Amino acid sequence: MMDVGVYRLPMAGPDDVSELAALIEAGEVNPHEICAIIAQTEGDGYARGYSALSFQLLLAEKLAMTREEVWDRIPMLMIGLTGGLMSPHYTVFTRREIDAPAAAEKRLSIGIKDTRVLLPEEYGTVVQVKEVAKAVRAAMAEAGISSPADVHCVEVKCPNLTAKRIADAEGRGQKVVSTNLAEAGSKSKGASALGVALALGEIREGDLSNEAICNNWGLYSKVASTSAGNEQVACRVVLLGNSLRAVSKFKIGSGIMQDTLDIAGAKDAFRAAGINIAAGISPKDRERIATVFINAGADATGYIRGRRTTMKSDFLAAYAGIFAKAVINAIVGSLIGDTMILASAGFEHQGPLGANLIAAIAKVD
Amino acid sequence: MMDVGVYRLPMAGPDDVSELAALIEAGEVNPHEICAIIAQTEGDGYARGYSALSFQLLLAEKLAMTREEVWDRIPMLMIGLTGGLMSPHYTVFTRREIDAPAAAEKRLSIGIKDTRVLLPEEYGTVVQVKEVAKAVRAAMAEAGISSPADVHCVEVKCPNLTAKRIADAEGRGQKVVSTNLAEAGSKSKGASALGVALALGEIREGDLSNEAICNNWGLYSKVASTSAGNEQVACRVVLLGNSLRAVSKFKIGSGIMQDTLDIAGAKDAFRAAGINIAAGISPKDRERIATVFINAGADATGYIRGRRTTMKSDFLAAYAGIFAKAVINAIVGSLIGDTMILASAGFEHQGPLGANLIAAIAKVD
Amino acid sequence: MMDVGVYRLPMAGPDDVSELAALIEAGEVNPHEICAIIAQTEGDGYARGYSALSFQLLLAEKLAMTREEVWDRIPMLMIGLTGGLMSPHYTVFTRREIDAPAAAEKRLSIGIKDTRVLLPEEYGTVVQVKEVAKAVRAAMAEAGISSPADVHCVEVKCPNLTAKRIADAEGRGQKVVSTNLAEAGSKSKGASALGVALALGEIREGDLSNEAICNNWGLYSKVASTSAGNEQVACRVVLLGNSLRAVSKFKIGSGIMQDTLDIAGAKDAFRAAGINIAAGISPKDRERIATVFINAGADATGYIRGRRTTMKSDFLAAYAGIFAKAVINAIVGSLIGDTMILASAGFEHQGPLGANLIAAIAKVD
Amino acid sequence: MMDVGVYRLPMAGPDDVSELAALIEAGEVNPHEICAIIAQTEGDGYARGYSALSFQLLLAEKLAMTREEVWDRIPMLMIGLTGGLMSPHYTVFTRREIDAPAAAEKRLSIGIKDTRVLLPEEYGTVVQVKEVAKAVRAAMAEAGISSPADVHCVEVKCPNLTAKRIADAEGRGQKVVSTNLAEAGSKSKGASALGVALALGEIREGDLSNEAICNNWGLYSKVASTSAGNEQVACRVVLLGNSLRAVSKFKIGSGIMQDTLDIAGAKDAFRAAGINIAAGISPKDRERIATVFINAGADATGYIRGRRTTMKSDFLAAYAGIFAKAVINAIVGSLIGDTMILASAGFEHQGPLGANLIAAIAKVD
Repeated sequence: MMDVGVYRLPMAGPDDVSELAALIEAGEVNPHEICAIIAQTEGDGYARGYSALSFQLLLAEKLAMTREEVWDRIPMLMIGLTGGLMSPHYTVFTRREIDAPAAAEKRLSIGIKDTRVLLPEEYGTVVQVKEVAKAVRAAMAEAGISSPADVHCVEVKCPNLTAKRIADAEGRGQKVVSTNLAEAGSKSKGASALGVALALGEIREGDLSNEAICNNWGLYSKVASTSAGNEQVACRVVLLGNSLRAVSKFKIGSGIMQDTLDIAGAKDAFRAAGINIAAGISPKDRERIATVFINAGADATGYIRGRRTTMKSDFLAAYAGIFAKAVINAIVGSLIGDTMILASAGFEHQGPLGANLIAAIAKVD
Repeated sequence: MMDVGVYRLPMAGPDDVSELAALIEAGEVNPHEICAIIAQTEGDGYARGYSALSFQLLLAEKLAMTREEVWDRIPMLMIGLTGGLMSPHYTVFTRREIDAPAAAEKRLSIGIKDTRVLLPEEYGTVVQVKEVAKAVRAAMAEAGISSPADVHCVEVKCPNLTAKRIADAEGRGQKVVSTNLAEAGSKSKGASALGVALALGEIREGDLSNEAICNNWGLYSKVASTSAGNEQVACRVVLLGNSLRAVSKFKIGSGIMQDTLDIAGAKDAFRAAGINIAAGISPKDRERIATVFINAGADATGYIRGRRTTMKSDFLAAYAGIFAKAVINAIVGSLIGDTMILASAGFEHQGPLGANLIAAIAKVD
Repeated sequence: MMDVGVYRLPMAGPDDVSELAALIEAGEVNPHEICAIIAQTEGDGYARGYSALSFQLLLAEKLAMTREEVWDRIPMLMIGLTGGLMSPHYTVFTRREIDAPAAAEKRLSIGIKDTRVLLPEEYGTVVQVKEVAKAVRAAMAEAGISSPADVHCVEVKCPNLTAKRIADAEGRGQKVVSTNLAEAGSKSKGASALGVALALGEIREGDLSNEAICNNWGLYSKVASTSAGNEQVACRVVLLGNSLRAVSKFKIGSGIMQDTLDIAGAKDAFRAAGINIAAGISPKDRERIATVFINAGADATGYIRGRRTTMKSDFLAAYAGIFAKAVINAIVGSLIGDTMILASAGFEHQGPLGANLIAAIAKVD
Repeated sequence: MMDVGVYRLPMAGPDDVSELAALIEAGEVNPHEICAIIAQTEGDGYARGYSALSFQLLLAEKLAMTREEVWDRIPMLMIGLTGGLMSPHYTVFTRREIDAPAAAEKRLSIGIKDTRVLLPEEYGTVVQVKEVAKAVRAAMAEAGISSPADVHCVEVKCPNLTAKRIADAEGRGQKVVSTNLAEAGSKSKGASALGVALALGEIREGDLSNEAICNNWGLYSKVASTSAGNEQVACRVVLLGNSLRAVSKFKIGSGIMQDTLDIAGAKDAFRAAGINIAAGISPKDRERIATVFINAGADATGYIRGRRTTMKSDFLAAYAGIFAKAVINAIVGSLIGDTMILASAGFEHQGPLGANLIAAIAKVD
């Protein structure tokens, strides 16, 4: 049976991995069981790299591996740019097989798979969609999940186009999806999200085409959260759900906030994870919340429920994504009395346009 | 009997006063009855001036006065710098005496008074505290309010020191409270808030001293919201409360959020205004909310309920005040399903350190 | 004969028009002779509007006109967003006909013309190019300039697409050049610059097509500086050059800086205006400089002479235009010992890609 | 005889140490001879840490040491926050003793010394001044420099107070110089600069007192550039000058720019290093420039030669230091046709208030 551990730990800075080091030294976390790290780092993009490097150095030492081997072994998703009440932290997932009687109910399970290395010309295309779908199905199998309804969060880290990769493709006579790097990155994220949707039956293969990617917003997954990085050459999939083959102490639930003010959607996710916050949260229940992930695809539209905002027009418009994350973090944080919540800001086929996806993991009562 | 009107109107930009112009043209608002305008403008400090000038031009025309006469007649409080879901808007208050039977319950009433012109060396001192207290008491009398418990919001716009004013004081052999303009402005705001507290019996005159201003944070008002401007030479007081001498269709309530996540404090304010949001808000009740003012003195501390934030340390630290406002706007906005809420960011003796003050005005059911 | 006056005046803020007011009151400037104002305002876009409104209010009073009449009569070009050593200021141009013997040499002359009102669907198209060209030719005639070589600076303020204008066009079954407002604005500026180039013979009519606008960067004017505003419905052309029909005390010169470090190009402009700065500038010559306009189309490329910059990649990338202006202002400012230089940041067909255009006006020795 | 190498290398990002790796692999740089690295990194403070960590990892591998040993051995000064045309890069200094005939003229020499570990209560006091002075004198001796006139640049990295260090001092009953961390950091930098001044005879010991630090601005060094870091426990001194005991291929010169527009001061520095740019720079001379360091203590005053700037007042005021660096980089860059110039922004006793210090190293012709 699979036993999954969830450790949400604070960071004093992007390079601060001391809390994890302490847990390893205390014997509470076995470094060989660490299977994924998902972090909310402060600072800009360089701080993400700094953080990843810091984790690699720690784990290279603890696992007696090279940094490259750590990198290959453990997916690390660094989500940067914090604002407002967002509190820098990371969630470490551990996984081990143990002998145990089957659980009476489904429990938190995790599946981790990479696609094959993708060619630059495949980024943002149906090829990527299908490769991601394949990896998602494999991750489901690994997690012991057969029903898509039991999948509550699929994090995908996918490759970005770079000038070098464009040159490589063109050198082989191939065309990339766009030479505008921002647009290409968006399509890579969109293709990854559609890959999740395809694997989970949220869309049909017949709906797919290269044109539909980042264009037909009617196609989306309700549980995908994708980001792209220059350092990736394949797509890395971290799938979280509930399974009868797991005996973790945790359960995961998810919900959709139709817009940023839709707190009912947030309450759904907590309820599904076994936390009732309809009438406020008790200190005991707050303690049971293990981690919360929100993908804030919303509200950079310039309007919220008919009210104009200045997210797109103000002199701070360049930071609209940070404000979007700060705002959703604050709203959900006020519901549970804790703002150590991960907020990312993807939107490409990740939920209906303008919605936020939320997943909560809680300790079973 | 006093009848008070409350009109919350959207702005397409700092210079957009078209909604008020339309109400005047339609005969819904009598420009002679306008007694105060409180606006949340987007953009920086210049946008505040632009907005004030736009209102003056409109009203100078409608009232057949000079701009200076409009300025003297109608206090205009412009709160700038929006972020997140904050929605630029303004609230116009009108006031008239009508013959009417006494109301069965206290209703929204408004009192407006200026202090005498203050000398630069008086800014931020006990002299200012006492002058503001005098104006607040006069405004209470004007509003027909005898009990401090019926006062729910006192907005004070007070003067800032400037290089010129320092020179003036020094030319007369007088010392100003600080030649650091930011510090002096803070003390002017603090003195104004203590003036409100003194008038309302929240502090005792014996507690007062020049040293206590912006120093003894145990002294504060629970209903004061103060800001300072270079254009002011006196303190302008706009006092909002409930009175048996008023027959308005509105009631006002207030509350304290002990910290930014304290939604119970926000619910208090709405409940006091006759809106129950304990279990979510109904569309009908949302319609009844006339306007909401929040003074977000909180959460630029770098911590919230034990969680570290990056408000003070990040590369966006310069915008911490905007994030603080965006966050409180989002949290309260999510409770009522509407983010057209005014958020300011004063803290000097305006509530206990780290708290937010909230006032809500609602139409009586 | 035409006599042109040039007054470069400092601003203490976007609404500070006191220096011009003082000159008018002192009788040094006759408000009826004011023909154009070109300002470098601090703050964001709203500050530009605030500034324009402040000038309109002043001149409405001094000319006993309505603000609308002032607006129609006097083109006001507000260039916002200052940084570094840039010093907010404005240049007032006056113009009058006087009886005087012909000058021995060409002197500063000014021509001002508007195009007809353009339809939204014409913005950014060859229609706009041709209308601007027509206005430029008319402005040359008005300025008494027959040779394009005598034209040194053509400022054009053209209309921006807005949601409302798109709706208007579509309501009449017409297509606009782009529904992306930023792209449409860029094309409006590009079409205006090509209009200048066409009128001055810098390009041939046969080179023109809708496709070429903001696409074929080989087409450009060496003296055009264009900006777009939502408030414009036609293109307003302010043309500056030297003419035998002028008897001003000033001369204008221009130059091209091939990149931002090309100080030789800057020196050309000053030399053409009669100021030799090859070996530094004398205090007397510095006094003779009446005003300097730079259009910094350069250096947001991410590279300068083979060196990578972080203009495009840094967390401040949103402010790259401000940095580009601050940098060119500093470089040219260091040559003449004065940073009260206007810097704008247009690039669409305004000089070869990556170049800066510079025009200097100096008092004749 | 001492042979000093100077390698100015571009960075593609804060973690890009590939150019140095390539030089080491090619045998051009012997890692055992590296004695200091001074870098201009893009991004925020975390990028500085990221960069330092990247250098440590590279050199730990090449020197077969731990990262801590590298850190103790090689001072690394990371200057962050780039803007405008600033080009991220680093300068590597190598040093070795070789048998060689004495040079006919003084050549570039380098001395590197640390003070003893300072106690938190000593930061920003005369104790720190004297310890730095001692280290500077030792570094001069090491560099074979006897006359202060031959010292052209002294970089000092000193410790910052932190909450932990304050607690440590207070736990021992000692008082720190200020519990305001920014103020304390400023005093640490100021004390370091005064230490340089004391060692070089620019001030007298009798002028010193704790009160004078960051207060009596008449005391300063013309060659000091200091920065503070939380990671430091002692002051690290890197002293650059010319010595008859050196046989390097390089010479160093320095100058003072009295204000940011004072290009004469910049020309002095280059002339002293053997590069004449009075009438522009030749490609050959540009090639000879090995590296340039500027300490831009200037121009955040809000005025430059009587012209008001918006550095202190604008919505970008938080980035005034970046603009100050971008502007001085551009001005000096335009003189030599190259913007790969290091600019820092210290001012505490580093040159007269408002001045910029500049040092240039060039290959001898």
